[in-house]
Amino acid sequence: LTSPGVAEARVLVINTGGTIGMTLDDDDVLAPKANALVKSLRKLPILHDEVYAQQTAMYEYYGESTLVLPQSKGNKRIIYSILEYSPLLDSSNMTTDDWGRVGKDIEKNYENFDGFVILHGTDTMAYTASALSFMCEHLGKPIVLTGSQVPIYEMRNDGRDNLLGALLIAGQFVIPEVCLYFYNKLYRGNRVTKTDAGSFNAFSSPNLAPLATAEVDITINWDTVWRANTTSKFHVWTELNRNVGLLRLFPGITASTVKAFLQPPMQGVVLETYGSGNAPDNRADLLEELKKATDAGVIIVNCTQCLRGSVSMSYATGKVLMDAGLIAGCDMTPEAALSKLSYVLAKQDLDLDAKKKMMSENLRGEMAADLAGTKLCLSDS
Amino acid sequence: LTSPGVAEARVLVINTGGTIGMTLDDDDVLAPKANALVKSLRKLPILHDEVYAQQTAMYEYYGESTLVLPQSKGNKRIIYSILEYSPLLDSSNMTTDDWGRVGKDIEKNYENFDGFVILHGTDTMAYTASALSFMCEHLGKPIVLTGSQVPIYEMRNDGRDNLLGALLIAGQFVIPEVCLYFYNKLYRGNRVTKTDAGSFNAFSSPNLAPLATAEVDITINWDTVWRANTTSKFHVWTELNRNVGLLRLFPGITASTVKAFLQPPMQGVVLETYGSGNAPDNRADLLEELKKATDAGVIIVNCTQCLRGSVSMSYATGKVLMDAGLIAGCDMTPEAALSKLSYVLAKQDLDLDAKKKMMSENLRGEMAADLAGTKLCLSDS
Amino acid sequence: LTSPGVAEARVLVINTGGTIGMTLDDDDVLAPKANALVKSLRKLPILHDEVYAQQTAMYEYYGESTLVLPQSKGNKRIIYSILEYSPLLDSSNMTTDDWGRVGKDIEKNYENFDGFVILHGTDTMAYTASALSFMCEHLGKPIVLTGSQVPIYEMRNDGRDNLLGALLIAGQFVIPEVCLYFYNKLYRGNRVTKTDAGSFNAFSSPNLAPLATAEVDITINWDTVWRANTTSKFHVWTELNRNVGLLRLFPGITASTVKAFLQPPMQGVVLETYGSGNAPDNRADLLEELKKATDAGVIIVNCTQCLRGSVSMSYATGKVLMDAGLIAGCDMTPEAALSKLSYVLAKQDLDLDAKKKMMSENLRGEMAADLAGTKLCLSDS
Amino acid sequence: LTSPGVAEARVLVINTGGTIGMTLDDDDVLAPKANALVKSLRKLPILHDEVYAQQTAMYEYYGESTLVLPQSKGNKRIIYSILEYSPLLDSSNMTTDDWGRVGKDIEKNYENFDGFVILHGTDTMAYTASALSFMCEHLGKPIVLTGSQVPIYEMRNDGRDNLLGALLIAGQFVIPEVCLYFYNKLYRGNRVTKTDAGSFNAFSSPNLAPLATAEVDITINWDTVWRANTTSKFHVWTELNRNVGLLRLFPGITASTVKAFLQPPMQGVVLETYGSGNAPDNRADLLEELKKATDAGVIIVNCTQCLRGSVSMSYATGKVLMDAGLIAGCDMTPEAALSKLSYVLAKQDLDLDAKKKMMSENLRGEMAADLAGTKLCLSDS
Repeated sequence: LTSPGVAEARVLVINTGGTIGMTLDDDDVLAPKANALVKSLRKLPILHDEVYAQQTAMYEYYGESTLVLPQSKGNKRIIYSILEYSPLLDSSNMTTDDWGRVGKDIEKNYENFDGFVILHGTDTMAYTASALSFMCEHLGKPIVLTGSQVPIYEMRNDGRDNLLGALLIAGQFVIPEVCLYFYNKLYRGNRVTKTDAGSFNAFSSPNLAPLATAEVDITINWDTVWRANTTSKFHVWTELNRNVGLLRLFPGITASTVKAFLQPPMQGVVLETYGSGNAPDNRADLLEELKKATDAGVIIVNCTQCLRGSVSMSYATGKVLMDAGLIAGCDMTPEAALSKLSYVLAKQDLDLDAKKKMMSENLRGEMAADLAGTKLCLSDS
Repeated sequence: LTSPGVAEARVLVINTGGTIGMTLDDDDVLAPKANALVKSLRKLPILHDEVYAQQTAMYEYYGESTLVLPQSKGNKRIIYSILEYSPLLDSSNMTTDDWGRVGKDIEKNYENFDGFVILHGTDTMAYTASALSFMCEHLGKPIVLTGSQVPIYEMRNDGRDNLLGALLIAGQFVIPEVCLYFYNKLYRGNRVTKTDAGSFNAFSSPNLAPLATAEVDITINWDTVWRANTTSKFHVWTELNRNVGLLRLFPGITASTVKAFLQPPMQGVVLETYGSGNAPDNRADLLEELKKATDAGVIIVNCTQCLRGSVSMSYATGKVLMDAGLIAGCDMTPEAALSKLSYVLAKQDLDLDAKKKMMSENLRGEMAADLAGTKLCLSDS
Repeated sequence: LTSPGVAEARVLVINTGGTIGMTLDDDDVLAPKANALVKSLRKLPILHDEVYAQQTAMYEYYGESTLVLPQSKGNKRIIYSILEYSPLLDSSNMTTDDWGRVGKDIEKNYENFDGFVILHGTDTMAYTASALSFMCEHLGKPIVLTGSQVPIYEMRNDGRDNLLGALLIAGQFVIPEVCLYFYNKLYRGNRVTKTDAGSFNAFSSPNLAPLATAEVDITINWDTVWRANTTSKFHVWTELNRNVGLLRLFPGITASTVKAFLQPPMQGVVLETYGSGNAPDNRADLLEELKKATDAGVIIVNCTQCLRGSVSMSYATGKVLMDAGLIAGCDMTPEAALSKLSYVLAKQDLDLDAKKKMMSENLRGEMAADLAGTKLCLSDS
Repeated sequence: LTSPGVAEARVLVINTGGTIGMTLDDDDVLAPKANALVKSLRKLPILHDEVYAQQTAMYEYYGESTLVLPQSKGNKRIIYSILEYSPLLDSSNMTTDDWGRVGKDIEKNYENFDGFVILHGTDTMAYTASALSFMCEHLGKPIVLTGSQVPIYEMRNDGRDNLLGALLIAGQFVIPEVCLYFYNKLYRGNRVTKTDAGSFNAFSSPNLAPLATAEVDITINWDTVWRANTTSKFHVWTELNRNVGLLRLFPGITASTVKAFLQPPMQGVVLETYGSGNAPDNRADLLEELKKATDAGVIIVNCTQCLRGSVSMSYATGKVLMDAGLIAGCDMTPEAALSKLSYVLAKQDLDLDAKKKMMSENLRGEMAADLAGTKLCLSDS
């Protein structure tokens, strides 16, 4: 029934909720509305070609929740089906269970689609993107998270452009990564953080350049795209350990605060330290609490509280933390480090040392490859 | 004894320690070295004019730890005396007590100097700058914190330029604020955060433009400079409450973590929420812990974990936090909010309501003035 | 016939042509298509509310080429009528005559509309915006130029957002300037230059911050908005002198090139010099040609070929050009300086000195106000 | 005589003049001063280690104009000799002859040094860097141009850092390119343009990322460094054709202006067109003048007047210029295109077609390599 010579790509859009699909309710408050998105998109000619849908009897094949983008010059059609969660979720309410559900839905539909788009609220999108990057083992297709700062029903909004860009990338390029697309840029999902609460340009990838830019042209930085060396079958790991936490150092932090935070059942902590991984080295009380925890089997990862930068083993001032048993988090974002901990700690067939080793290795491009040889330390010059 | 027609300005430099004055010790590790900075500066012709010092018998007047910048065209001389702390402090080790000591030293020397420069490690400089901005009541002279990413003794370093710029601003301009000078920019001290662990451009002021830029010319943005409407006498408030903490939300955070963090003696907490101040509204367990704490008198300030942006009362998704008794932190940095809590909680003659009111008011330019009238909300358009 | 309580604002959209309204023709080449834009916009629900149009019998009142934006919360309706030029113009083909026509059409419709939007190709938009800023004397309403890098008919395009933003600003804010709106920013028209041929973010305003940003909210920088002190009647000056030119210095430029360029009928030249207005001072042959021209009544304005920066009288190296009779162009863009020359040279009741004085004065915010007092020259410090 | 185990690298510094070495003369005007730089540098401990010089009897070996940087940890010493031009040149006065002289001096000293630093005024530094990149055939060592916005004798200046960074790169890295180092970044010389007349950050490389950044560490982007595939002997081509020029299109440009500019002896012209290489296609008079010139053997290169972007053959609107015989300049800067013309036109053993072919090829990394395959044109999507 398809037009001769038209190549079709299929994308599954999982609508978890978020601002992109919200409408004003009767109290004039923004709220999600069930089953509204498909209907709305169908009225937007740029996001749906009803004539093609009718001509090809598309709904009979793919169901009522399927839409199709207008044809591109290369005779390519992106057909996308929307799987909407019920109830729709505010991203502030997302939990590790919801990550698992998204993962399972991708796994279930993996063979039938060329790519996946996840609609998601912006508030915790960087956390979900990071978590999915670890959960998706041996990924061979693009998974693109997106959403918007302003609902797609508003006059001025960033939702249409974000959805369209995510669809075009998921349907046309073989980028086998969990990505995040926002404001004309495609980022590696476990490298982003939400850095602006009030701008369309809401996300940054402080330690890695974007994978692609979509302005007048879509330009892919193929050198940066992650290619796992794998022929294994795609699998989603949905078990996650929730006994993890984020603790940020500040001057005058008390040992009792640290102790309270590290008490059982806590099993993994991202410690947001100063600068290149520094902590007070004259605070025996603090360091002792950290040491006690690592001795008791808590994995503590040393990440910087700076937006940009890296924590390495070599800095003397950070040495006391290494002595206390912490692991250097290199240039991981707190979001990546935290969700990596949840993922690694759930690998119950691994012993503690194997888990620690995994934490310090680059699993999905979430930390910098070894830079030896490309840098000349200033103190050497 | 001074040359006729030469205007002199006096600046007190308090050297608390930090990378700027570090040297390699015998183990090839960077470490502070007592009494080394004055000697080193004396050899740098750009930071000291020995001829002038001799001609004017400067050391007899001002002591051995005094230096003088080369003359400027306007016949101005900046004479600066260095007060070095012993031992020199790594900024990771700075505590509220150290902030108090710096404050007292400024107060003691307030009348004898035109401006003050604080040399400080970069790791916690934003915290110290924020704290001092609150502690310094009725300030009428510039206090400029600076430091460097690379020691002043290294061949390539940012220390000389940072010190020189800080001296020129502290000695020549009436900017009655606690400021931070770094990489050719002057920022309001309670607006900055360290955002790059590996670049000379280490600090950002995400929600306020710089007070000045010092490139080929020094340009002051006078419209932005804060002018307290006060004729009261300068005073440094050195009492600070240490029972404060920073807690960052993340998906899956457990109620037990929150409860543990909020337990006594905690009295003030900065909660780093999502986006414009959002938190899960379906997590009765979490919200109950927060409510219990505020009912018990803990002041909790709602700040965003985004680098840029503001938390307002009006967002529906943030409403549950307001219902739980939290205070909107507007666009304060976590550093500013935390040190403001330490300052406000120490005002023992104020009752809880007065302290909460103080937290929600703009005391030192640390949060945005009311923006009513300058914005048209998109949802209104 | 209008709904009770609905405030309406009227905007005139002058469609001169440009990429925004182009379609692929039969040869697969992008080309303008007459009468296509109104029809297309009518199908885009975000740019037109057909129900409101029918209910209010809008077409009977305002004609078939009129559209209406969806209602805003403040019960405001922006009704916009499109005046399309025939033939539609590629902006590369625009001339001073076309600027005059646009000016006259604004003047003719000035009383009937609250604001004006000019659709225009991006290639020469900065020139047209500059020219209109001078031609529009005693302007009291917003004139906003916009366009796009990708046609509004394409799937991914910047045309819809640019048109929508321009309409919202022209219809809702009293910004009595000729402006340029692009990629979520509103600039002063005579301050912009096209700096990127391949990005949605095509324009820069190197020496002046944007007048407004339109992201999640529309924020106007009211301090920057230009307010002429005038009660005179709005008038468009359409006479323009075409005997003007742009000449860029480069090492090894020959005197014969300069001479050829300055020969009659040339009456006004923008000389793009080095840095802060510098030219070779050892090239007597060049300087003599310049001197001859200014002696003969040619007005030569000294502008920098740097994107950012300013040409002042005070630099010694630029002094030879002042001696040759050139006028300092301060921080004007070449586009602004050139169109200002066209405008000033056409004031036939002024003598040469009056014209030169006008060139060195700030007429429409096109050059920096006096900065005395806010700068401390480095060489003074 | 050298210390055992110390590796020495030798750098030749050619001081052509420029702001970096200027002093205030008796009239308080900045002017170059002969033989002053070496003396000054000798007093700056960060740029010269007198003890090492004495211990190794360095002056006897290398002469009085030689200095040595302090030792680096890797036991490396950079010994640099200064060759000062007399008279010192203001960069505004530099001509093609001066470029030839610099080239010859490099050739003469090529075997004796590991790298070369050219001190140069900023105003025309981008032109000189571009020219040298073409003139230096089969280059195998780094040539780094630098200078400053503020003289090295001023208190606050960018000269020391720029000179130090240039020396460290020229002496330590095998980057066989003509580069420009400024404000902690190393750029390819034929990619830069001076974009800010009043900032330390004076240069941009709009279409190519920096080759290196020198902040806390020096990081080389080795993927970007140009490596000519050559085993030929280094040679400097010093013949340059001066009958070249830059002409910028603007609306209303007259045919007589174009004709005057293109008249003999003009042999090569860079035409700065609109956007992606566009010109009026309805101006038969203009196009005819261009056609006449190319028919007469003038080579005209089509470059964009936008800071960023590229001119390609494929745009329809630019087609009239191709029909008129122009060559697409891709993403060359005007500075690169102009000096490439001077270089190519001087190759007298080549016929016109060979020269045109050379102009359209990438000789020294001055234009983008073929991007086929990495881009998906929007109009295709």
